[in-house]
Order: sequence, then C-alpha cells, then structure tokens
Amino acid sequence: MDTLERPATVTGSQRTEIEAQRQATHETHRATVPAMEALLYQPIPILDHGFVRVIDYMGDDAAVVQAARVSYGAGTKKIREDAGLINYLMRHRHTSPFEMCELKIHVKMPIFVARQWIRHRVANLNEVSGRYSILDNEFYMPDSDNVAAQARTNRQGRGDVLNTGEAARVLQILRDDATRSYTHYEEMLNEIDGQIVDPERQGLARELARMNLPVSLYTQLYWKIDLHNLLHFLNLRAAPHAQYEIRMYAEALIGVVKQWVPLTYAAFMDYRMGAYELSAKGLAAVRRLLRGEQVERESTGMSPGEWRELMETLER
Amino acid sequence: MDTLERPATVTGSQRTEIEAQRQATHETHRATVPAMEALLYQPIPILDHGFVRVIDYMGDDAAVVQAARVSYGAGTKKIREDAGLINYLMRHRHTSPFEMCELKIHVKMPIFVARQWIRHRVANLNEVSGRYSILDNEFYMPDSDNVAAQARTNRQGRGDVLNTGEAARVLQILRDDATRSYTHYEEMLNEIDGQIVDPERQGLARELARMNLPVSLYTQLYWKIDLHNLLHFLNLRAAPHAQYEIRMYAEALIGVVKQWVPLTYAAFMDYRMGAYELSAKGLAAVRRLLRGEQVERESTGMSPGEWRELMETLER
Amino acid sequence: MDTLERPATVTGSQRTEIEAQRQATHETHRATVPAMEALLYQPIPILDHGFVRVIDYMGDDAAVVQAARVSYGAGTKKIREDAGLINYLMRHRHTSPFEMCELKIHVKMPIFVARQWIRHRVANLNEVSGRYSILDNEFYMPDSDNVAAQARTNRQGRGDVLNTGEAARVLQILRDDATRSYTHYEEMLNEIDGQIVDPERQGLARELARMNLPVSLYTQLYWKIDLHNLLHFLNLRAAPHAQYEIRMYAEALIGVVKQWVPLTYAAFMDYRMGAYELSAKGLAAVRRLLRGEQVERESTGMSPGEWRELMETLER
Amino acid sequence: MDTLERPATVTGSQRTEIEAQRQATHETHRATVPAMEALLYQPIPILDHGFVRVIDYMGDDAAVVQAARVSYGAGTKKIREDAGLINYLMRHRHTSPFEMCELKIHVKMPIFVARQWIRHRVANLNEVSGRYSILDNEFYMPDSDNVAAQARTNRQGRGDVLNTGEAARVLQILRDDATRSYTHYEEMLNEIDGQIVDPERQGLARELARMNLPVSLYTQLYWKIDLHNLLHFLNLRAAPHAQYEIRMYAEALIGVVKQWVPLTYAAFMDYRMGAYELSAKGLAAVRRLLRGEQVERESTGMSPGEWRELMETLER
Repeated sequence: MDTLERPATVTGSQRTEIEAQRQATHETHRATVPAMEALLYQPIPILDHGFVRVIDYMGDDAAVVQAARVSYGAGTKKIREDAGLINYLMRHRHTSPFEMCELKIHVKMPIFVARQWIRHRVANLNEVSGRYSILDNEFYMPDSDNVAAQARTNRQGRGDVLNTGEAARVLQILRDDATRSYTHYEEMLNEIDGQIVDPERQGLARELARMNLPVSLYTQLYWKIDLHNLLHFLNLRAAPHAQYEIRMYAEALIGVVKQWVPLTYAAFMDYRMGAYELSAKGLAAVRRLLRGEQVERESTGMSPGEWRELMETLER
Repeated sequence: MDTLERPATVTGSQRTEIEAQRQATHETHRATVPAMEALLYQPIPILDHGFVRVIDYMGDDAAVVQAARVSYGAGTKKIREDAGLINYLMRHRHTSPFEMCELKIHVKMPIFVARQWIRHRVANLNEVSGRYSILDNEFYMPDSDNVAAQARTNRQGRGDVLNTGEAARVLQILRDDATRSYTHYEEMLNEIDGQIVDPERQGLARELARMNLPVSLYTQLYWKIDLHNLLHFLNLRAAPHAQYEIRMYAEALIGVVKQWVPLTYAAFMDYRMGAYELSAKGLAAVRRLLRGEQVERESTGMSPGEWRELMETLER
Repeated sequence: MDTLERPATVTGSQRTEIEAQRQATHETHRATVPAMEALLYQPIPILDHGFVRVIDYMGDDAAVVQAARVSYGAGTKKIREDAGLINYLMRHRHTSPFEMCELKIHVKMPIFVARQWIRHRVANLNEVSGRYSILDNEFYMPDSDNVAAQARTNRQGRGDVLNTGEAARVLQILRDDATRSYTHYEEMLNEIDGQIVDPERQGLARELARMNLPVSLYTQLYWKIDLHNLLHFLNLRAAPHAQYEIRMYAEALIGVVKQWVPLTYAAFMDYRMGAYELSAKGLAAVRRLLRGEQVERESTGMSPGEWRELMETLER
Repeated sequence: MDTLERPATVTGSQRTEIEAQRQATHETHRATVPAMEALLYQPIPILDHGFVRVIDYMGDDAAVVQAARVSYGAGTKKIREDAGLINYLMRHRHTSPFEMCELKIHVKMPIFVARQWIRHRVANLNEVSGRYSILDNEFYMPDSDNVAAQARTNRQGRGDVLNTGEAARVLQILRDDATRSYTHYEEMLNEIDGQIVDPERQGLARELARMNLPVSLYTQLYWKIDLHNLLHFLNLRAAPHAQYEIRMYAEALIGVVKQWVPLTYAAFMDYRMGAYELSAKGLAAVRRLLRGEQVERESTGMSPGEWRELMETLER
C-alpha cells in the first residue's frame, strides 16, 4: 500500500501509549477543567495525516480572574462577575492575566506549515530532528478541492479551484516527486525500517540525506504557549488571509480554547476574531455617515483599498 | 500593636481561601507530583513578612524526558534511563526540554527585591497595583544579624555585621521613616481601612500618594515561568554575590524544585550551582598544573582577580 | 539651596561629555537621518528633573520598506511607493519589518515610573544600581496642577485637581519625607559626596541603606528597543488612561519617532493612536445605525460601559 | 547552463544596489567602527550559493562599557580600563551591557539551515515568502569532501567522508531530484521568468506549488540581533557538534564580531568558545588530581561519557 494513502492516524504504539495515559487518573488540588480532561491526549485529525493533541494545560477562566484581581485589587470582586471582568480585560487589552494559563500540545503538520508556525517566538518547542532520527514517510497531499490557482486580486492567496484535469496533474506531480524523494532518502541512508540494505555501502549521514525531502513532509512538535500568546497566534492564523493549511490547525485550536476557557473564548470571539479596527480616518468617515452626510472617498484621505474594505465591512 | 511587628503570615481571609483550595480535590489525567500537591497553596515564610506559595505547576521530570525524546528520537529510549538523559541535557545545555514544565507562584517581597526579580524578562507576571489598590502597611526590617557594612573588597556586597549600637540605630531610622511615610500616605489618601477620615477634605489620587512609600514596602506578585528559565533565575539569584534578601527567595524556590523535579534538581546542582567554568586560559593553566609544572600567574595571561579565584576554587 | 528645587538639568560633567559627543563627526555608509543627528545626545526635559536623550538609532523608514520587500517580494516595488507600503504594513499588523529599526535612549525618571516602564519585556536595559552606587538626591515633586484627587468614575485614575490648600499640604508632606529619607540615607551610609562623615562609625551597606528611599526618587536607565515594540509601548503609555507621569515620557518619545521615521509616525497616528476597535457587537450596532435603525443598548448585547463608550466615540 | 552550477554570487541588480550603498557616505555623530564600514553591504560567500552581508550595526566596544558604567557606577571608570571591564562582564555573565549593541545582516542559506537558525527566538527577522514570490532556482549541493557517513559514536553527527563512488552517487541523486522538483514547480506555476507558459492552463497558487521544493533550496532573510544573543547563537552554532553547514555561517559571523567589537571578541574566545565547564563532580575530581591522588572514575560519580570527556579535556 502506498504510504501516501494511509489514513490520518497515530501509530499503533502511540495509540497504546495514549490509551494508557487516558486510563491513568490522579488526584490533584490544582484547577481542573473536565472538558479538557475529556480531550487530553486524543489526536484531533487535521489535513490528511496531521493532528493536534492536548498534552497538558494549566489554569482556567478563574485563573485569569484571580491574576487580574491581584493587579487591580479586591474592588473588582464586588462589582463584576467573572465574565464581565474577562470581557473588560480583553476589550482593554489588559493582556497579562491571560498569560497565567498555559497549554501544551503535540502537533503534526507539514514542514511548510511548521515554518509559519515557528515565527511565533513566545512559545516553547521541541521538534523532531532529522539529524537524530529517520523521518517518517508522510507527505501532505491537498484534497482536490484545495488545489487552487494563484489569486488575481490578492497577491498572497489562492483563487479559483483548478479544474479536475489540472488538479489531477498537480497531485500526480506532487505524489510522484514526494515518493521518489523519500525512496532516494532511504537509498542514501542505506537503511529501511532500521535494517541496513546493502552491507557493502556506507549510509549517508541523516543530517545530509534529509536535504532531499520536500517541505510537504510531515514533522512533529511539542509546543507550549500561554493563553495570551495563543490567542494572538489564533487571531492571525485563523484569519481569512492565512494559508488554508495552517488555518485548519488554528480552527481546531479555537475549538480547544472553547472547551478550556469558555468565558475567554467568548470574549476573544467578540473583541478579536469578530472585531474591526477603524483607523482615525475611518472613524471620521463613520461619524460623517452617521450624521447623514454623503461621503466620497476622496474627502476621507483613505486609499481605495481601505475605503473598499470599510464599505464592505459596514455593508454599504 | 505596631504593624511592623506583626508576624509573617497571610491575612485571615487568605487563610480561609487557602484551606478551601487545599480541601478541594479533583481527578485529572495530567502528570501529577504528589510532593507538589502537598505543597500547593501553602505560604513558605521568607524574611519578616514575605512568602512564596505554589499556585500551580505543569509537568514533571518525565515531561522533560518526553519532550527530549521527540527531538532526539526513540533511540534515546533504549540507551538511557531518565536520570541519565536529564543529566545529559543539562550538561550539554539542551535547554528546550526543560521549557516544557511550568511553575506558577504567588510571592510577597519588598519592592527593592521585586525590582531585581523583574529583570528576568521571560516570565509572566501580575503585580499589585498602587494605582488601583491601597497598599498594605508592611515594610521589610532586616534582622540585626543582617545589618551589615559596605564590603571593602567587593563593590556590590555587604561586609561585617554592624555592631549592636549601630545596628539598632539603623533599624530605628528605617522603622521610624517607614511608619511616618505610611501614616502620611493614609493622610494624603484621607482614607483608613476603607473609611473616609475627614469628609471635608479631598483624598489624593492613589497613584500619587504611593510616591511617598519607600522601596522596603512589601508588594505581591503572581509569577509564572518555565523550568529552564526558573533554573537560570535561581542560578543567578541563589549565587553568593546575589543580595541576601533575594537569595532567601531563591533558596526557598530551589527547595520547591527539589520536590517537583528531583532528577532535574540533582542535575542542576551538579552542572550549574556547583559547577565552575574554566576560561581558555584557566584550562591551559590547569593542564600545566596537572603535568606537574610550576605555574606563575604572569605566564597565564590571567588577571590577578581571575587567578586568585581559580586558585581558591582549586583549593591550592 | 534645596536640591529638590534644582532645575531639570544634567550635571556639569555630563554636559561636557554631551558637547564632546555632539562635536565628534564620523563618516558612515549606514542609513542616516539628519533630524535624528540633530537630536542626538541632547536631553529633552520631562517632569521636574527627568529627561530623555537619544543615544543611538539604527535604520529609517526605508529600512522598514527594505525588510518588507524581502518578505513580500519585488512586486511591492512597482505598485506601492514607500508611504503606501508602510501604511499597508501598519494597517494589516505586518509587524516584523518595523522590528528592523532600533532606538537607544538614556532616560531619567522616578522609580514608580520605571516600574511601569520595565513591564515592557522586549527591550534591553541597564539601570543605575543602588548596590554599587550612591543614588542622587533627586525626587519627583508634581506641579500643583497635577496634584489631583482620586477619580470617582475611573478606578485607576485622577479626578479633579486639589484645591490650593490641600495641594500645598500634600507637597509639603512629599517634600519633607523625601528630604528626611535622603538625609537618613546619607547618615546610614556615613558618607556624603564621597567623604566619610564619622570615622568612628561603620557605614551601612548601600544595598540596605537604599531601602529607606521612596519610589519618587529619580533613577536612570539606558534602554534599547526596536521600532515595533516601541510603538506598542507608546500606544499604551501615551493613552489617556496611562498615568500622567509616564505619559509625559511617551509623548516626548512620540516626538522623537516623528523626527526619526516620519512615514511610520503618520501611519501610527492613523492606525493606532487615533484608531478605534469595534467589537463584533459594536460593528453589528454600527451597521444597524447606518441602515437608519433605532438601536437600543439592550438589543446589542453590549454592557452599559461599552455602549456608553461607543456612543461617545461615534459622537451620538 | 545548469543553474545548480552557477557561482555563489548575488544578482546583477543586487550588485548595482550594493555598489550604490557603498558609495553613499553620510555624516553622523553616532559611534562608528571603521572596520565595519569597510565590510558593510558586501557579501561574504558561504557554502556554494550562500552569503552573509552586514546591513547595519549599532554600537561598539565602548557602548558596552558605557552601559555597564550606568549600572555599576562611575567607580568602574577609575579602576578598570575598557578591556578589563569587558572581560569582567563576560566572565561574570553580566550580559545586559552586551545587549546594547545590535547587528543587522542579510543572509542566504539553505532551508534546513534556516530551520536551525530560527530556533533562536530573541532576534528580528524577515524571510522571503514563497506565498508572495516565486522562489529562486538555487539548491545547496555539498562539496564531495563534506559528503559523509552517519557517525557511529555520535548519534547526531557525521563520520567518515564517503568514498568517491558513493559520494558521486549521492550528489547525482541530490542534483537530479532538485532539478526535477524545480522544473515541476515552474510547470505547476505555469510561469517562467515572469512569463505565462501555457495561456490555456491555470497556474497553481504559489503557496501550494512550493510544497514540492526540498529543504536544500536556498532562502534569504534579514536578521537583526543584539550582541549578547548573537554571541550565544555563535557559541552554540560554531561548536564542533553543530552541523557543518550552519557552522560555516557561524564562523563567518565570528569574523564579523572580531572586526566590530575586538575587545568583546577576545573575551568571548577566552570565556566562552575556549572555556570548559567543570561540573561539581568534575571540580572535585580535578582537586583530587591536583593533590596528587590516583582517581578512578567509579569514585567520582561521573558517567563514563563525562569522565572520558573530562580526561580528554585535561589532556590526561
């Protein structure tokens, strides 16, 4: 069977380990979130071979509130219940209390996604190393629904989906090149499944042989981040202009956040994901519109792109 | 009773909250450390009014090992047991697996200690704000054993303990000035224990009135940090040249680390706290000494200070 | 003469050094901004004894553009001139090109301002150390125009200015306590202007004696930060809810930014300082208003505070 | 001509731009290092197609000294000249003054090197984006002297160089697969040198087509970092266990540091690159050896690997 065809799952030994972790139950005095306990360790499948698994978490909505009350005093206790305080913190970008929660995940994704991911510097990470280990034969192949042409209006994105014939041709190229590069990787290593292939030959160093592998190869990382920086990551990577592949991971993680810290999730959706920032010029234009003025772009000082975006956002 | 005299404890309402947290027990599938569960929430007294309390933790020694094995591959599983792998990581400064554990504490300390503490930037923190809250009447007064003269040989440290008369005089000044500054703080606020003192007067804004308080005043913070950065902090702040007051906190936290991650603790003591770094010149000198050469400082290129330190370290 | 009265200037030896630095001229192939060259080293006075001085800078508006074109490709060269590209980057929060410029300043400010300042972690800093040095006798005393009561509607801020009698009383307290604490500091040190006062007495260690000094004392730091993080700092610290004292520094630095990177400055004023973020609920309300609907707060899901702020912002 | 064969140079338009930058001379009052001015903008060739170019710098050895004197006081001025102070700072890991200098470079390197590079988080960076731009047809091909077998004693490194026949075979595979992957990249894009190839076909989105390219492809980045973090990077990446390819970049950058801040360079070589850290156990063993004892490994508590390394380092 073609390894590129195999289903998006963890290996047998990983599955056994996951089951063991999920069986083990301990007593703790720490803050605990039952919905996260239900999620722990289980892979959430993403793309064709990828996943996200929650490995550990620290804190909950109450931990955000607790830290805020240290800073802003006991007075906050009386006048606001937790949801109101969390909304207030999110709205006014009092970000430090959200840093008091922490998430650790195990994530498997293509290298080109990992290269976008790793740009977020305020996080902890361990990635599989191709210097120490022989990398697995797993490559990302998009669904034909996602094989799209270069966008014409947007320099960084995708436009229309390719027609069936074109898409098939692209997938054939990607598949063939990935298969060949991995076969050559093993040939250069002179090792398959831990066995030397040809005892007469020397195997190339792993750190060199991996050079031949494309950025569609899957890699894995353990990644740990605080809630504030996670939300910042999600706000950028779940946005419409983010590349589809990383967006799938971001959307899955937004689902995790919803289970973990539901009040913070609600505030995040209202004040970040669904929010729209008016520039000074945009605000002036909205005020004029609300006074019933007829407003022409030229009189606002806004560029055509900004004006178009503003009008679309305001549903004019 | 003079508030400066009151014992180093938490308030009554804090004590009730701590008891409630320690009673509450939850089930979890997460990594759990029984010795840390026993420590959770309880204040460890430090100096005259300070404390450290563990609020939450993520991970254990096994979490360090797990992250290392992601990076360095399954091969590590066979050849090294956990302690050996942790020693290897510490010794070769493979620091990222230690970032996979996280500690959250509540700490109460004088402002001048907090100002040293906060220099460590890779951490999360919420501090009591003197803009929002009326600050508590608690000041650090050193034990007379710690009232020392300026060191003569070391520009940054303390020398001999002052004689009894001098120490008493110093403590009297510190005590009087602290008491007066706090009385004036309340007078400017025109508020004591939540009650307006003189309804005819306006109270000064809190953010201004606090200007009068000295840096011996106690402040409080919630502080969260990963294990790698915590060890870096402890290595600097538990060192002999660190100021005595912050060193007391660092030593208490080293005790917490010992309970939390005993294998990491042992590696830290061997490869960091007890280690000594030979410079290139120092190494050359040691090699010559081991060959039985007579070595004069002038021939080593080392400064007098370095040479003296090396000779002391080598017990020559 | 009372040292608290002395004008907001640098010392004589500092003035000589500044003049020497301003005289020295070198040739460079690096990006150079004439308006910044004119500013270099000169103290910009702030509050009663504070200042900001530009010590060094790296890059200019063109350096932002250059870095953006590395990421986003040569295509950007044709379609956008520099100002348009900088606006685009600011508006879409493509923050990394702004990290390619760097500013280094020398700043003198009260300790309570420094404690707010230092919360910004992504910066480099060296502060005067009270362990090594004897701290200068300079304390912040607010103008009587800034001696204000606690705000009633806003938990963190100032309200009305105190009446003349109350203000004078506050200033008298602040002045007396500062003077006394400094006199006692010198007495404990047993040293004035580098001279031992009483050869029979031991001087207390500097690191202990400083405990007596209030947070109104001036401290000094060298501070270095990239342009992106500087703008983030300024956006928070020049905002109306920031404490007046730190706001004075932020406003001075906004003036420096205007000289240094005028295109970035203009984009910052439009897309950050003057901007307003509509939440998802706020945006829905604005759309309804623009369609001519009568909108009641209750139907929007917004809190009273949010609704009031939105209505004020929209000038309804 | 095979593009893989083309010499390690910048393009013609880049060369013109570099010449223009090197011709332009400005006057400045900032700290200037003539040796760095001579280096500015010029590519230092590395590997077959890579380079490092200095784009800008801030500060010099004197800027380190200046920042240290802010922290540690004017007293340092009298007793130590600059070199001594820099040695002192390096030796005692007073790292913050070294953060006061900053370097900006333009660097071209294979993707697998960039992935190691980017693990250093305390830096600013802009990388060429394969979403916006069509990536250049340049791949790293090792010299046959660097085509080595997997090391047997060291899990992460290289062992003996492959024999001529094996090396030729490896290079043939790498070359063929790189050429084919790039040809297919262009075919999927349906665009060569800015020209549509087949007007009847749709071109695949750039962000998808790049998936086919191997990690031997060259990428480019602008990278900015402070001197302290640069030295930390160099200490790790110029070490013997670092992968050969990134080590070549690190060694070139050490050469830049030598030109830029010669006193800091000398201290770095003595106290970091040439230093050796004795663990507590290692130090105890050295003390015993110096007393003339016969020391067996078993009596030291050291592992066989540590003991062997210590004995080699001490040249026993």
